[in-house]
Amino acid sequence: MVSKALKSRVEQLKQKKYRKRLGLFLVEGGKSVLELLASDLVTERVFLTAEYAAKIPPLPTAVPFELVSEEELTRLGTLATNTTALAIAHLPAEPPLLSPTNTLLLALDQVRDPGNMGTLIRLADWYGLQGVVCSDTCADPWAPKTIASTMGSFARVPVWQRDLPEWLDNLPPSVPRYGAHLEGDNVHRLTLQPSGVLIMGSESHGPRPEVLERLTQRLYIPGAGGAESLNVAISAAILLDNFHREL
Amino acid sequence: MVSKALKSRVEQLKQKKYRKRLGLFLVEGGKSVLELLASDLVTERVFLTAEYAAKIPPLPTAVPFELVSEEELTRLGTLATNTTALAIAHLPAEPPLLSPTNTLLLALDQVRDPGNMGTLIRLADWYGLQGVVCSDTCADPWAPKTIASTMGSFARVPVWQRDLPEWLDNLPPSVPRYGAHLEGDNVHRLTLQPSGVLIMGSESHGPRPEVLERLTQRLYIPGAGGAESLNVAISAAILLDNFHREL
Repeated sequence: MVSKALKSRVEQLKQKKYRKRLGLFLVEGGKSVLELLASDLVTERVFLTAEYAAKIPPLPTAVPFELVSEEELTRLGTLATNTTALAIAHLPAEPPLLSPTNTLLLALDQVRDPGNMGTLIRLADWYGLQGVVCSDTCADPWAPKTIASTMGSFARVPVWQRDLPEWLDNLPPSVPRYGAHLEGDNVHRLTLQPSGVLIMGSESHGPRPEVLERLTQRLYIPGAGGAESLNVAISAAILLDNFHREL
Repeated sequence: MVSKALKSRVEQLKQKKYRKRLGLFLVEGGKSVLELLASDLVTERVFLTAEYAAKIPPLPTAVPFELVSEEELTRLGTLATNTTALAIAHLPAEPPLLSPTNTLLLALDQVRDPGNMGTLIRLADWYGLQGVVCSDTCADPWAPKTIASTMGSFARVPVWQRDLPEWLDNLPPSVPRYGAHLEGDNVHRLTLQPSGVLIMGSESHGPRPEVLERLTQRLYIPGAGGAESLNVAISAAILLDNFHREL
C-alpha cells in the first residue's frame, strides 16, 4: 500500500509548479525507469509490480522501492495502464550551456505539445547533440508525457530553458542560426556542417518573428506533393539527417 | 439542434465496424473539413458553428449543413473541444493499386498508433507518393484520430489495406523492397531512386519476420548518440528524404 503522503507527492508531481518547487519529476513505465536507474540521475523512490521486479536485475541497494499492484500503479500515475514501474527522480542540475561553435544544438521555440517535445529530445539523442535549448513557452521537458515520449533519452540529453531571442543575441556572431522555412534554401543543394544552432518553431505557427529575424540561414525541405507542411519533429529529423551526412 | 438519428450516426462512426458497414467516416476540425470540401470525396453532411461559417467561403450548395453551437459540436465529436466544424463523408472507392515500378510506395506493417499512421499519410503526401499500403493490422486509416493527424492529406493520399506478405509476393521480382534496419546499409552511402516499396514496421517491434524476410535491401540511418531507435514516422521521414535527394 502506497502511503497517503507518497500518493499526494506523486499527484503533485503531475504539475509543473510542484516539479519546480520540489525539484523532482516522475518517470513512468519499466523501460524509462531502467534508463533512469542506469543514468547519473538521482532516483528518490521506485514503485514497481512484483511481476516486473522478478523480470529485471535487482535495483541498486541505495534506491528505496515499494512493491505495488498493477491497479495501484495505474491509479498512481498518468498512463492508461502501467504494469511495470514508476519512479520519482531529482531534477538534474543544469550543465553549463556552451556556445555551439564546434557542435550543433537544437533550439525549440514554442513547441507546446509534450509528445513532440519528447520526440525532439529523442532525436537530439540519436544524433548525439550536446542538448536542446527551449523557449520558456515550450512544453515542460519534465512533464510525464514528455518524459515518456523521449523513450529514455531524458536521462542523456540536457535541456536548457532560455529566453530564446536573448540567448541568440548573446552567441558569438559567427555562430550560424538555421531554421526551417518554406522559402529557404533547398537543403539537398547545401553541404551542412553540424555546428551552430538549428531552430524549430511551434507546430502551427513556426518560430516567432523575433526568432525568425535572428536566423542566418533558412532551410527548405524539398517535397513534391500536396501537403502544406510537415510536423515539427518530422522536419527536425530530416534537417538533422542533412546536417549529419558525413557520419 | 442535431437530431437524435444524426447524433447516433456520428456516434457509430467513431467505431471501425460501422465506418465499414455504412461506408462513411468522420472529419473533424475546420481545416480538415475545408480540405474535404475542396477534394473529390463526397461529403454527406457538415455541422459547423455560426462563427466558423461566417469566416469561410460559402459551402457548395449540394452539401447539406447544419449550424450548431460549440458545445453541441464538441459533444458530438471526439476532439477535446471543437469550435469550427465536423463532417460526415463517404469512404472513397479504392483506386487501382499499381506495381511500384517507376514510383515509390510506402508500406506499413502493424503501425497501430493512429497518430503515427496519420503522420505517415501526411509524409506520403509531402513527397507526392502514389499512396500507402497498410497491413490489415495497422490502425484504421479512417479513424477520427488518423484523419486529424493527416492534417488534410487524407483527402489526397490513397490508402490500401492488404495482406502485406502476400501482396509483396505478387509484385514483379524486380521491384526493390526497402526497409529500415539497425544492421542495414548506411543510407548516406547509397544513391536511392524513388522506385519500389519502402516498408516501415510497428512502433515497438519493427516489421514482422514474414515481412522482414521479403526485403531486398535493409537501410540504416546513421546516428551518433545514445538513443536505441527512432519513432516510425521519424525514420520514414529521413528515409523518404534520402529517396528524394534529386527533387
